Amino acid sequence: MKHGAARRFVVGTLMRVWVPSLTALLSICVIGWACEACNKAYAQQLREGFGSNTLGNKELLLAMQRSQVAFAPTPASAPSPASPPAEFAEVIKRDMRLPIPPTSYVPQTARPDKRVKIELSEGEAYLGKGVIFKGFTTSDAVPGPTIIVNEGDIVEFTVVNKGAIPHGVSIHATYSQTSRYLGKIGAGETRSFLFRATYPGVYMYHCAPGGHAIPMHVLFGQYGMMVILPKQKYKLEQILGKKPDVEIYLLQHEIYASGKDAIEGNPLYVMFNGRLFGYVEQPIKAKPGDYVRIYYLNVGPNRVSTFHLVGIVWDFAYWQGHPDNVWVGGQTVTSGPSDSWVIEFRVPPDEGPYLMVDHAMGHAARGAIGILQCDRNAKTPVTILADGPRYSEAEMKTFRQQAARIVAPFEPGSPDVDVPVVVPPHEKEAIVRIIGNSYYPKVLEVRPGTTIKWVNEDVFTYLEGEYSGIHNVLVTEGPETFSSPMLGHAESWSYTLTKPGEYSYMCTPHPYMRAKIIVREKPVTLTGTSPRTPWWAITLLLAGAVLVFGIAWYARRMTAHRARSH
Amino acid sequence: MKHGAARRFVVGTLMRVWVPSLTALLSICVIGWACEACNKAYAQQLREGFGSNTLGNKELLLAMQRSQVAFAPTPASAPSPASPPAEFAEVIKRDMRLPIPPTSYVPQTARPDKRVKIELSEGEAYLGKGVIFKGFTTSDAVPGPTIIVNEGDIVEFTVVNKGAIPHGVSIHATYSQTSRYLGKIGAGETRSFLFRATYPGVYMYHCAPGGHAIPMHVLFGQYGMMVILPKQKYKLEQILGKKPDVEIYLLQHEIYASGKDAIEGNPLYVMFNGRLFGYVEQPIKAKPGDYVRIYYLNVGPNRVSTFHLVGIVWDFAYWQGHPDNVWVGGQTVTSGPSDSWVIEFRVPPDEGPYLMVDHAMGHAARGAIGILQCDRNAKTPVTILADGPRYSEAEMKTFRQQAARIVAPFEPGSPDVDVPVVVPPHEKEAIVRIIGNSYYPKVLEVRPGTTIKWVNEDVFTYLEGEYSGIHNVLVTEGPETFSSPMLGHAESWSYTLTKPGEYSYMCTPHPYMRAKIIVREKPVTLTGTSPRTPWWAITLLLAGAVLVFGIAWYARRMTAHRARSH
Amino acid sequence: MKHGAARRFVVGTLMRVWVPSLTALLSICVIGWACEACNKAYAQQLREGFGSNTLGNKELLLAMQRSQVAFAPTPASAPSPASPPAEFAEVIKRDMRLPIPPTSYVPQTARPDKRVKIELSEGEAYLGKGVIFKGFTTSDAVPGPTIIVNEGDIVEFTVVNKGAIPHGVSIHATYSQTSRYLGKIGAGETRSFLFRATYPGVYMYHCAPGGHAIPMHVLFGQYGMMVILPKQKYKLEQILGKKPDVEIYLLQHEIYASGKDAIEGNPLYVMFNGRLFGYVEQPIKAKPGDYVRIYYLNVGPNRVSTFHLVGIVWDFAYWQGHPDNVWVGGQTVTSGPSDSWVIEFRVPPDEGPYLMVDHAMGHAARGAIGILQCDRNAKTPVTILADGPRYSEAEMKTFRQQAARIVAPFEPGSPDVDVPVVVPPHEKEAIVRIIGNSYYPKVLEVRPGTTIKWVNEDVFTYLEGEYSGIHNVLVTEGPETFSSPMLGHAESWSYTLTKPGEYSYMCTPHPYMRAKIIVREKPVTLTGTSPRTPWWAITLLLAGAVLVFGIAWYARRMTAHRARSH
Repeated sequence: MKHGAARRFVVGTLMRVWVPSLTALLSICVIGWACEACNKAYAQQLREGFGSNTLGNKELLLAMQRSQVAFAPTPASAPSPASPPAEFAEVIKRDMRLPIPPTSYVPQTARPDKRVKIELSEGEAYLGKGVIFKGFTTSDAVPGPTIIVNEGDIVEFTVVNKGAIPHGVSIHATYSQTSRYLGKIGAGETRSFLFRATYPGVYMYHCAPGGHAIPMHVLFGQYGMMVILPKQKYKLEQILGKKPDVEIYLLQHEIYASGKDAIEGNPLYVMFNGRLFGYVEQPIKAKPGDYVRIYYLNVGPNRVSTFHLVGIVWDFAYWQGHPDNVWVGGQTVTSGPSDSWVIEFRVPPDEGPYLMVDHAMGHAARGAIGILQCDRNAKTPVTILADGPRYSEAEMKTFRQQAARIVAPFEPGSPDVDVPVVVPPHEKEAIVRIIGNSYYPKVLEVRPGTTIKWVNEDVFTYLEGEYSGIHNVLVTEGPETFSSPMLGHAESWSYTLTKPGEYSYMCTPHPYMRAKIIVREKPVTLTGTSPRTPWWAITLLLAGAVLVFGIAWYARRMTAHRARSH
Repeated sequence: MKHGAARRFVVGTLMRVWVPSLTALLSICVIGWACEACNKAYAQQLREGFGSNTLGNKELLLAMQRSQVAFAPTPASAPSPASPPAEFAEVIKRDMRLPIPPTSYVPQTARPDKRVKIELSEGEAYLGKGVIFKGFTTSDAVPGPTIIVNEGDIVEFTVVNKGAIPHGVSIHATYSQTSRYLGKIGAGETRSFLFRATYPGVYMYHCAPGGHAIPMHVLFGQYGMMVILPKQKYKLEQILGKKPDVEIYLLQHEIYASGKDAIEGNPLYVMFNGRLFGYVEQPIKAKPGDYVRIYYLNVGPNRVSTFHLVGIVWDFAYWQGHPDNVWVGGQTVTSGPSDSWVIEFRVPPDEGPYLMVDHAMGHAARGAIGILQCDRNAKTPVTILADGPRYSEAEMKTFRQQAARIVAPFEPGSPDVDVPVVVPPHEKEAIVRIIGNSYYPKVLEVRPGTTIKWVNEDVFTYLEGEYSGIHNVLVTEGPETFSSPMLGHAESWSYTLTKPGEYSYMCTPHPYMRAKIIVREKPVTLTGTSPRTPWWAITLLLAGAVLVFGIAWYARRMTAHRARSH
Repeated sequence: MKHGAARRFVVGTLMRVWVPSLTALLSICVIGWACEACNKAYAQQLREGFGSNTLGNKELLLAMQRSQVAFAPTPASAPSPASPPAEFAEVIKRDMRLPIPPTSYVPQTARPDKRVKIELSEGEAYLGKGVIFKGFTTSDAVPGPTIIVNEGDIVEFTVVNKGAIPHGVSIHATYSQTSRYLGKIGAGETRSFLFRATYPGVYMYHCAPGGHAIPMHVLFGQYGMMVILPKQKYKLEQILGKKPDVEIYLLQHEIYASGKDAIEGNPLYVMFNGRLFGYVEQPIKAKPGDYVRIYYLNVGPNRVSTFHLVGIVWDFAYWQGHPDNVWVGGQTVTSGPSDSWVIEFRVPPDEGPYLMVDHAMGHAARGAIGILQCDRNAKTPVTILADGPRYSEAEMKTFRQQAARIVAPFEPGSPDVDVPVVVPPHEKEAIVRIIGNSYYPKVLEVRPGTTIKWVNEDVFTYLEGEYSGIHNVLVTEGPETFSSPMLGHAESWSYTLTKPGEYSYMCTPHPYMRAKIIVREKPVTLTGTSPRTPWWAITLLLAGAVLVFGIAWYARRMTAHRARSH
């Protein structure tokens, strides 16, 4: 339907040009892990008419023309609004006079009260229970560091891109423009941004390089908690007349084994603070009667959580952590992805374990259980942060050697996670879906002559490179190398593999996306119980032979007989 | 288990009667797209004892007897409660005296303040990015028109059924009986209903023909937003002392590719206002300092949404849009299907894009991203409605020709969406699930001799025709035609296909449900590298031939030799 | 990766010891349905070094050492805190002086105002529409009895374990330690616990034996509703000056067909009060103008519900049922698993059906629809409890005989639910996942020589027996019997099945987990239209025969001819 004759010609022509040029580009990509060049080439192609007879592309071009602002690449140097343009002064003045907090806008020359810094990168995290996760990290962990500031603080937020691809940050605590300042941060770059912490509450921050990369980088591990502590006292603090004895910053999040699982919202693990049952192995401890405050954030990034503490009815729950949104009692707080609560209660005068749990039982069983142990000998006050665990390189090496499982959304992980899919011999075509920045299935085994059809299911196919859901297929190793054109949403490309061997391929705009196809001849087995063995052929062969020799013998005998009878 | 001997006899007998009679009915169905007749026949059967030895049917009959009210078909002409029955007058009088709003009940002779009209039909919608959706529409779009009235208004709501099957309406803004008036509207019929808009808020309206068709018509596209604007001012309006500069009616909804996906809640796309990334392509614009109010409705119909605006902390969020349910601050609002909010904030004094997003990242990646562009040159005040885009027939024709993909939940769409399932030759039976008013898989390829077992997974198997989840299988084209009996929940029916060819079939009560089975002989290929090619057979054949000719030659030579030697 | 050489040796050695010893243990297990012994053996193994070279096991051991409190088995006799330890007295005294309710703690010698009792067991429930569910039950039903007490009451809660495996209870209405008292209740045991009902609201109670068994027993049916009626009047009661005419205790819950579905959150049915469309078959009735109060609890245990009543806007909705958390208006209430609401409204002065529905349409279609029928002749006041239906043994027998479907998460149910998975002949390995206390797939058919690899996907692999997600494979019947070692999370074990026949196997720590593998030779079929039939071989055979006979005949003729010509 979408491959008109004109297009086929264009594609054909391009293919002849693409293969060598892409292979050349590949050397850059693989080394630099950045492929702006080849994506710019694609955008250029688009403008010059490649695929412009498809509906999606027409709209893309139209959109590019219409909204230069949104689609224009960020200036290499971020804007520096030291003083706001004159015409915005009156907005700021108005905001200052209102009975509600002003927005977070401050001139970037202001003097910060707090300085915080995070480092973004691609990387690994050890989740516990023998599981290693290869995705994106914040300050070498999943989740990143807990950031705590006071209402009214001017915060300098610095982001270092230690990785090889673009990263960036969205800070939910900021009531101001951030995309232009911290959105697109290239590999090796550092950026800072100043803002005022205005509305108190519990917030998410997360990687947000822009476009398609925003959901991708969140889905694959880059997030953390930021809390703006209120000037106003929370209600239980007023009633008890003291600070909490136990403060728990609790971040719930999900781990996905593939882009498909991530987009469809089927996590492999659901965890508190980066630990698979970490607070079962090392319970948090409190004394009877202790005043506990939990800063709870459900990062998601897909599932709704219903947090509950076995044996506890909340004294007060504060929606989004703002002290004005106060509710009384309650067995649970429900949070969509990036929803948050402050929860307060007293530890009952009775020792024993109090289970913290996401009451969505599938989540609990996948890791979202912890223990708050009431123990008269506990040492309080105590503060538990939402930082993911960090390990030394030596520890990580040990984990890698002894790992039970490697979860790697963008490439084949352990074979029990990414089970190779063997295409039945009777099927002449196999489909590989490109979804959530990964190929599905990641490992495919086919017979020679099978046609592989790659379909791009990613929908945000605007912009370029890491910012885009535009993907392709580039075989980097194998009996033959080839590459597909760039594929927009719902576009597909087919190729028939005839030569046996192992083909490793990747996506040029997202060079961390890796997958494999094994082309294997039908095994030549003439014995054994395998269903492929033509036992009846042997029977036939034997029967035939017997028959033939029988006839030959008979013919010969007859000949002899007749000869004799002469 | 469920096919007792008695039943088998009945089924057998009926089958002999059914096939011709259904085929006759089919001609009516296909033309008229309505099949009350054949479903009434089924109900009659039930009463007469067909299948009455199954547990489900027994209960159905019992239920029919017990609750005549609920099961009785709506009278052809709707009731006209011009004046309420005398005994209800005191209820109305009591309601009028209460300090809370009365219910929406008004005599149907009252004079309306507002008149609104929607048209319901089966139809197509263009979603953007080359994707066409074939489902159900409201006023030729998905979603339908935004309806805005004032608190206290008497509203006349008119519904036109422009389609070929029954439709109807449920209006969440109505605090009164509506099912009897607008529930069952036959093809070609028009119905009106009057009610008073009492509780202010943001509401969903949707198709609701009754029974099983309620979830089905909502899942497949018939819904819209209705807002009752409050007399009381929202809080930010009070504080700023002015009306909003930017009003956005934002409806989030899901698109499903099949009934199975719909029932299981796995959307293919998640969108704002019927546009796949429409507000990325054409951002909504606002000036720095503008007062923005979003009327947000998550239609679902399955997924929970967590709406967030990058760079914004709400000033106020109003649960369900009622000004009394006011919350302060917050980075998100979480909404189950048909939940709603009013959200208010000021655009910060800094230009740039502010991303609107469902923070469930799988939803964002599937289409739920838009841009609110802060631009000093923006023209405000502006109002964005939640109406789905409408296109001319000529535009739709172009879209159809150039479409990248057709999503058609009830019938086979594009082959990359509804991939034909090839049943491996070693399997003698294949299961087709009937679920969410579609067959799964929609296209099946089998070898001759395979038994197909259809299992009805739809659970609401009460009532008749469109109102019911009772389904069957009726082959309309193919090497042979046949039909199954009507299947209640968890009932199944099997048929062995022996003749090669393509079988097209449908469901008699839901004639838009279509699927296909291709019966294909094993391909006779004697060459090539295909695993199906018996290369060794050729070898065998040649070897046999060589052997035979060799022996023959030898025999002949021997004969000749012997003859000569005589 | 995880099967080092050392381990392989240990496993090999153990296997030789395990098989007979496990078989011996099996006899105990099967009879007693309890297998503490063999699990203790596993823990012992762990301590003695078995598998201690794996990462997960190392951590488990470390955790065992670190947190004796959390991991220590409950003392056989529960503690009896008749009077609290002296040092907690001041906590209690402090609580009594606060302006908020004290915790639920009361000395266990206190005199109860209310006594309630539930019985926990494994068992069956009839869901309606011909469906039988085999899971866990509370007082022989799903859900268990509705428990209603008044704010301030001292409640004696008695739990009887009538089953064969450990059960226990978590009572969300209790603001006190319960795990130590009611957590682990052995088969045949009875336990009681006293607490004060402090915070009014609508609560969940559920089975909670401890550890992995908590999510499992909730997922598979053991839960109920407990309501603490407030001293303070709900708002509509204040306004109308009377008690509700219709009180509905409505519990929404999910039914899962397998552990995999349960963990992934894909229910087969979603129901109100244990009835599949029960209130469609038997609507709840109310008179026009009646005051209705719904105590709504979404048990889940996975899905978020959005409850709506067609034709109704709430007068008031109370979060978690506490009268202080009051919201005005609204078309829906959204509840994560174990969230609750009290909803109040007046029945409008117009007769007809008002549909109660989870507006997540996939849930509605799967069973979550009911009818509130407004009928002038209805008899009110009326109270509908959330108790699941209970049937006599005779009734259950009839249901079993006539069932359309048996849903049995832990073992193969009806073949249309647990479709046997036939492994294609070209695959040499098949994976069985152990997840949510069930094997997936439950019935597998393979060829001789196929290697089966069992992978344990359950993550909570701490503790022992029913409390743990540690699983194994023990073949109890078949051509050969064998067993695997105990598997921690992400651990796997492989075995090659060579002998044809049917293998039934189970999990030693969870003896109700059952599955089957059928090893079947390739069927010897030389005729028919089956794709397996080598029709062309027959052709070849015939052709060969014709050829051979032709040659033979020719040879003979030639011989004769030459003979004659002599």
